[in-house]
Amino acid sequence: MLPRLDAPDINSSEIEHMILRLGAIGAHSGTGVWRRVYDPEWVAAQRLVADWMGEAGLSVRQDAVGNLWGRVEGTEGGKAIVSGSHIDSQCPGGRYDGALGVIAALVAIRALLTAYGPPRRPIEVLSLCEEEGSRFPTAGFWGSRAITGRIGETDAKGVLDDKGESIAAAMKSVGLDPDLIPNARRSDLAAFLELHIEQGPVLEDAGRSVAVVSAITGIRHTKITLAGEQNHAGAFPMDLRRDPMAGFAEMAGRLIDHAHRLGRPAVTTIGRIEVWPNAPAIIPRDVSFTLDARHPSSAAYATLHLTHSRMMAEIAERRGLVLTSEVQFDLPPTPCDPTIIAALTQSAQALGIPHIEMASGAGHDSQQMAAVCPVGMVFVRSKDGRSHTPEEFSSLPDIVDGIRVLAGALYRLAY
Amino acid sequence: MLPRLDAPDINSSEIEHMILRLGAIGAHSGTGVWRRVYDPEWVAAQRLVADWMGEAGLSVRQDAVGNLWGRVEGTEGGKAIVSGSHIDSQCPGGRYDGALGVIAALVAIRALLTAYGPPRRPIEVLSLCEEEGSRFPTAGFWGSRAITGRIGETDAKGVLDDKGESIAAAMKSVGLDPDLIPNARRSDLAAFLELHIEQGPVLEDAGRSVAVVSAITGIRHTKITLAGEQNHAGAFPMDLRRDPMAGFAEMAGRLIDHAHRLGRPAVTTIGRIEVWPNAPAIIPRDVSFTLDARHPSSAAYATLHLTHSRMMAEIAERRGLVLTSEVQFDLPPTPCDPTIIAALTQSAQALGIPHIEMASGAGHDSQQMAAVCPVGMVFVRSKDGRSHTPEEFSSLPDIVDGIRVLAGALYRLAY
Repeated sequence: MLPRLDAPDINSSEIEHMILRLGAIGAHSGTGVWRRVYDPEWVAAQRLVADWMGEAGLSVRQDAVGNLWGRVEGTEGGKAIVSGSHIDSQCPGGRYDGALGVIAALVAIRALLTAYGPPRRPIEVLSLCEEEGSRFPTAGFWGSRAITGRIGETDAKGVLDDKGESIAAAMKSVGLDPDLIPNARRSDLAAFLELHIEQGPVLEDAGRSVAVVSAITGIRHTKITLAGEQNHAGAFPMDLRRDPMAGFAEMAGRLIDHAHRLGRPAVTTIGRIEVWPNAPAIIPRDVSFTLDARHPSSAAYATLHLTHSRMMAEIAERRGLVLTSEVQFDLPPTPCDPTIIAALTQSAQALGIPHIEMASGAGHDSQQMAAVCPVGMVFVRSKDGRSHTPEEFSSLPDIVDGIRVLAGALYRLAY
Repeated sequence: MLPRLDAPDINSSEIEHMILRLGAIGAHSGTGVWRRVYDPEWVAAQRLVADWMGEAGLSVRQDAVGNLWGRVEGTEGGKAIVSGSHIDSQCPGGRYDGALGVIAALVAIRALLTAYGPPRRPIEVLSLCEEEGSRFPTAGFWGSRAITGRIGETDAKGVLDDKGESIAAAMKSVGLDPDLIPNARRSDLAAFLELHIEQGPVLEDAGRSVAVVSAITGIRHTKITLAGEQNHAGAFPMDLRRDPMAGFAEMAGRLIDHAHRLGRPAVTTIGRIEVWPNAPAIIPRDVSFTLDARHPSSAAYATLHLTHSRMMAEIAERRGLVLTSEVQFDLPPTPCDPTIIAALTQSAQALGIPHIEMASGAGHDSQQMAAVCPVGMVFVRSKDGRSHTPEEFSSLPDIVDGIRVLAGALYRLAY
């Protein structure tokens, strides 16, 4: 093993140039991007990333769903250490969400190769596709799900975009064969490290540039419907009503208050509501809403959902409302790997970069990748905690801190 | 004045026949009707009512907006005693809402004329148009507003149906001249008595067939918007959020609870809500809702709105939300006339019909007519308190009770 040189040369003006150049492909709303998977902008962006991989001396290949891999062999062989993220965006999204993780992996590995030559273990840079589900709403994590073998045989034909085109047809339009999706599976990975913008205000609040992620939150979306009795808003006395809006108000208030009382990192959000018939002078017949409840600890996650269920059942029962609920998806909490956490933490300490450890409240490709290998993440401070908007921003000094921490960890794992 | 003969012959099978015959015009969804103002079904229904008026010996005329008047002169002249309601319906509505009040007035006056001959004072039967606003949403109470001079000069051109046709064009299509709307105004009315289905469950709950209405509720619709800060549902800790859905939940809960604590006849309803962007994993940017708040007492009505404003301002302030509110309409409470209430009450007592006195929680043409003459109303029990649906139903014995009470009151006022 080589001596630990923890500060390979990271050129900040070159990083800025890469962010702007990748951000120019699918540029939208000033500082934003609009890059949907398999659209021309996405194809052009992957081509640029492939060129960069080639220039860095990596051998480049596209897998069956369009993920790009750039590989350098290790002198001692074995399973690969992988770093990367996704380049598809929200519509419109910003320049940093996903894209920064691909640029970071490229810059870090190129710096390591320049400083220390070939690694002991193979290293790969990975540019994933359709993390956001911004073109195919039900195909989020498409690229990482292909790698972990989590795409069903019939998924490609059934998944449609807003124009009714299937993801299978979209793949064919860019020269990919949907029948070969199973070939994208990998079982030879040793680690996946992902640098990502935080997307929240915790680092800003703490006055730090980077965080080492301890776990990725569990996320459950439940659709709840409260059915009451539709009636005339004037002619029905309060004491004879079964009003689902009144039941919703009590539930929403208590569900949200409960997360406040638990404190960080528990979060509970009600972002979507549908009311029928949704008329000013009619007591609604029913109110449906989506409950987004997250916690990064498995035990706390289970308790949270149990508490929610009991709370809602009691309120519905007491108010004479019929409650139905359907779990729309459930991604259990994903702890990051202790060895990778240690590598990232030691790297930050050795570099003298003050950091915090925190859970990720957003979902990430790493959550999927954890099914095939240990994972870890680095967060970079987001201005005003914003993301999924053209206004998302992370400063160059913060980005350099993040990439240096990542490079130091990759060095520890692969050299 | 003639001796008080309080039970003129009211033929229940004839009433049933009239309900079914009028209900056959624009019949919809089995037991419902679909009769929008100035549509062929409405024209046919008014023609039938005109025929009935003629058969009863009334002199019939249509006014400038299409209201039908059937008049019998009084031996002593003076201002007219009027009874009636509307024959336009919700889409679809039931056979009773409105139509029953027209049939009741016809049956009562015909029975009075048969039993007692011509009255001292003129009596008129009135069949009003577009009470519901079911074709022209902003033209509710169109017929009664024409009679009271509450239609502005430019209203007829600006009021559009869902196909973009103006009410002026619709009037022309049935031979009415919108320029003559001011001619519909009446200043020679002594009283307006309206029989209507209750549309609520109060009579059913009390085990009574009819009610004498003490007042028609004040109704205010306020649109409230709560603006917070849109953010990622996972990455934003609870303690840093400004979540308008959380603010809405607290407000809706407290506004509705307040009406419960006040008890009958106060009612408060939140029937309509709009959330932006209304996505499961996004803390909303803003939540808008409509507050429908009603009370039949002027003092309580004013206090109610003041309490609501203070409650909402305090919650918005405490939660860092920007609150804007806009009163969309405000119909102040309309007390019924004490002399008409007395005539109806004495009529019910003399006939031995047990009844209650109650406020109307729904709006009615009587509310408008109160601008030009004293008004009073009789309510007939609604099955399950339902209305604005093909399933609305009032039983024939209840209807006969209501018409007898109405006839007795008309006798007291006009003979």
